[in-house]
Amino acid sequence: MDGIKVLVFDVGGSVFDWQTATRAAVSALAGERGVEVDDEAFCFTWRRRMFEQLAEVRAGTRPWQNADSLHRAVLDELAEQYPALELSAQDRDSLNRAWHRMGVWEDFPESLKRLRERYIVSILTVLSLSIVVDSSRHAGIDWDAYLSCELLGVYKPEAEAYQKGVRLLGAEPHESMMVAVHPPDLLAAQRAGLKAGYVKPKLLEMGSRGETSSFEIVAEDYGDFADKLGC
Amino acid sequence: MDGIKVLVFDVGGSVFDWQTATRAAVSALAGERGVEVDDEAFCFTWRRRMFEQLAEVRAGTRPWQNADSLHRAVLDELAEQYPALELSAQDRDSLNRAWHRMGVWEDFPESLKRLRERYIVSILTVLSLSIVVDSSRHAGIDWDAYLSCELLGVYKPEAEAYQKGVRLLGAEPHESMMVAVHPPDLLAAQRAGLKAGYVKPKLLEMGSRGETSSFEIVAEDYGDFADKLGC
Repeated sequence: MDGIKVLVFDVGGSVFDWQTATRAAVSALAGERGVEVDDEAFCFTWRRRMFEQLAEVRAGTRPWQNADSLHRAVLDELAEQYPALELSAQDRDSLNRAWHRMGVWEDFPESLKRLRERYIVSILTVLSLSIVVDSSRHAGIDWDAYLSCELLGVYKPEAEAYQKGVRLLGAEPHESMMVAVHPPDLLAAQRAGLKAGYVKPKLLEMGSRGETSSFEIVAEDYGDFADKLGC
Repeated sequence: MDGIKVLVFDVGGSVFDWQTATRAAVSALAGERGVEVDDEAFCFTWRRRMFEQLAEVRAGTRPWQNADSLHRAVLDELAEQYPALELSAQDRDSLNRAWHRMGVWEDFPESLKRLRERYIVSILTVLSLSIVVDSSRHAGIDWDAYLSCELLGVYKPEAEAYQKGVRLLGAEPHESMMVAVHPPDLLAAQRAGLKAGYVKPKLLEMGSRGETSSFEIVAEDYGDFADKLGC
């Protein structure tokens, strides 16, 4: 796309499949305990509560912390809600590591290679640096940079997070595109001056509904996205 | 090496050949102007003055800024010292980009691949994020992470730069090794609790002299380094 130098990707749900990784970890633990647990409900609450706590961090009513710390705090709440699981501190630490071994959607790796030939392609995420480094290694993919909001000192969807991220990569906001399956993330990126690239989510995903008509790219999948960017 | 999870690499001079890239840019410009310039002297002054200015940033007597900004400020000084070059603002901006297209020592890419199979391998540099992202793309190499002190808010050789860097990657200092051709960098890393991996420099390099007997690894080249780490 003309004038675009940098693509920044949301990853949780957009690129990495957090659901399968976390549900498998909860399901395995429940199996060990011989307890029936709805792992989907458990993990959707885990994810939703993390974002609710993150909103408190952004509002300044909760201390600055990274996603590992927030995920772990939610597990303390979930331990109360699922007493039959008898989650020890060690169990919670171990479960929390599921976020570090997320896989990617199968059409992504090939598309990433194509996109990197033409653009600087970075992660831009609210997840911790360690989560995205470990999950990228786990999935066998390489990026041009790994930007966590943890490093930027400001979380998405604040405009500064997008602007600071792309400037660190040597581009102005108008020379950059945010890519995600979540319309609210993309609308915030547009308000910060970036272009928006929407890719349809693979699974039912929180925050993935909404109007997409203002986005510069609307793609069926990552192959279609790379095609539409001329890669 | 037992207990090591993370390797953090210095890159300027250690991995990236800054000398050839910057000297070629200066030499090309001098050629265009029909002026005789000792490009080696020019570029060694450029590099040395950048570190002198960086020391002022660390001391708090110069405002916080990244290496691009420091490199550019030194060019303003050099323009005075080399009046025959008639360096316009545009020339200086253009010359400053030479740092974004550094090549790597030829034994490095293969060694990096071997090391990444066993360790999380990241850059840890005083250079800007944009410099190391662009130069890595230029050289065709991929890292697990790209940590610039620009992101950490504290410059090497402060202990906090090493400690914060490796913790962001999920390791404690004693589970980490700093790798460089510069003994002072490695000694500072050891004082911060990291292990030290020394690789002999390929070219005469500023700050590459000094005692190496306290380092956990002393290698002839990057192949030897990977061998010594059991990769």
